[in-house]
Amino acid sequence: MERYEVKLSGSGGQGLILAGMILAEAAALYDGKNAVQTQSYGPESRGGSSSSIVIISNQDIDYPKATKVDVLLALTQESVNKYAGDIKDGGILIVDEETVKDIPAGKYKIYKLPVIATARTQVGKVIVANIVALGLIAGLIELVSIDAIKKALFTRIPKGTEELNFRALEAGINLAKEAHLTVDPNLECISY
Amino acid sequence: MERYEVKLSGSGGQGLILAGMILAEAAALYDGKNAVQTQSYGPESRGGSSSSIVIISNQDIDYPKATKVDVLLALTQESVNKYAGDIKDGGILIVDEETVKDIPAGKYKIYKLPVIATARTQVGKVIVANIVALGLIAGLIELVSIDAIKKALFTRIPKGTEELNFRALEAGINLAKEAHLTVDPNLECISY
Repeated sequence: MERYEVKLSGSGGQGLILAGMILAEAAALYDGKNAVQTQSYGPESRGGSSSSIVIISNQDIDYPKATKVDVLLALTQESVNKYAGDIKDGGILIVDEETVKDIPAGKYKIYKLPVIATARTQVGKVIVANIVALGLIAGLIELVSIDAIKKALFTRIPKGTEELNFRALEAGINLAKEAHLTVDPNLECISY
Repeated sequence: MERYEVKLSGSGGQGLILAGMILAEAAALYDGKNAVQTQSYGPESRGGSSSSIVIISNQDIDYPKATKVDVLLALTQESVNKYAGDIKDGGILIVDEETVKDIPAGKYKIYKLPVIATARTQVGKVIVANIVALGLIAGLIELVSIDAIKKALFTRIPKGTEELNFRALEAGINLAKEAHLTVDPNLECISY
């Protein structure tokens, strides 16, 4: 693995910056890799879209270099519209099936999955959709170990919320397992 | 103000990433500016140096562009050694007077101030040195309003720690006021 980029996007209150930090810290502090994590804020981010980029590499990261992302997670229609063009050919687009109705055409694999619904119904709190998404990404891309994600998660969440967050992470990992079953490697651009 | 870059550096446990996030969120969410905040993690960041860059602008920020910083805060000797070369000519270097003994020569203004000692003795907790530093930077550069910093701080800190953190912020702002008194604008490169 030379350099792997993940972009997490959605609305301002969905906790995607925290999810990005946990992914970056898992990779760097517990899996021995290098990581850079960036978030952009505009005046619009109060209610509008929010995004976080995590770059993970076994080597030094020469950050100030515009590249395309390997994986885009989009939890809102606005964010998929805005960022789908940033995905590499052959990359992965993960969208929430409840909030994203229209997916822009592109040469990427598409996972349309119930991220928010899983947080709400399986875990019981829609606020942990970010951690469900983190488990999902960790399970899908197998870039950072689950053990490292758990350690990083533990240090970043408020005391007393561990059980809730760990359940959200597990629910996301399970979502990735089910998603794997439906992958058809012969198709270049397909919805799952 | 076209584009203003601040780099916060120190050791891994000093909370400088949080301070950078608060500065970026204050500028973007409450002061109507644009902001990008980036942190780099390496395997060494467990014990070693940590850094966070905040870019603030009234205009869109074209981030992937390597530039020099306007302000460097360094809370350890290692971080000042590593990053002093990143400061623009005429920029500002702020170092903790307790931990930084040797300051590399350069064309920047130097503030040598008791950041950590202020957290420990005036506020009573060395762990809030990051928030003292935030108040100090806000006071020195007057780039983001104190009101915006307070709002952003409030949303980012754990409940129950508000009073401690607000005292730390005020202590940092006061440190900036005292530092201002000693500035000699006729000198290009001087220690305060």
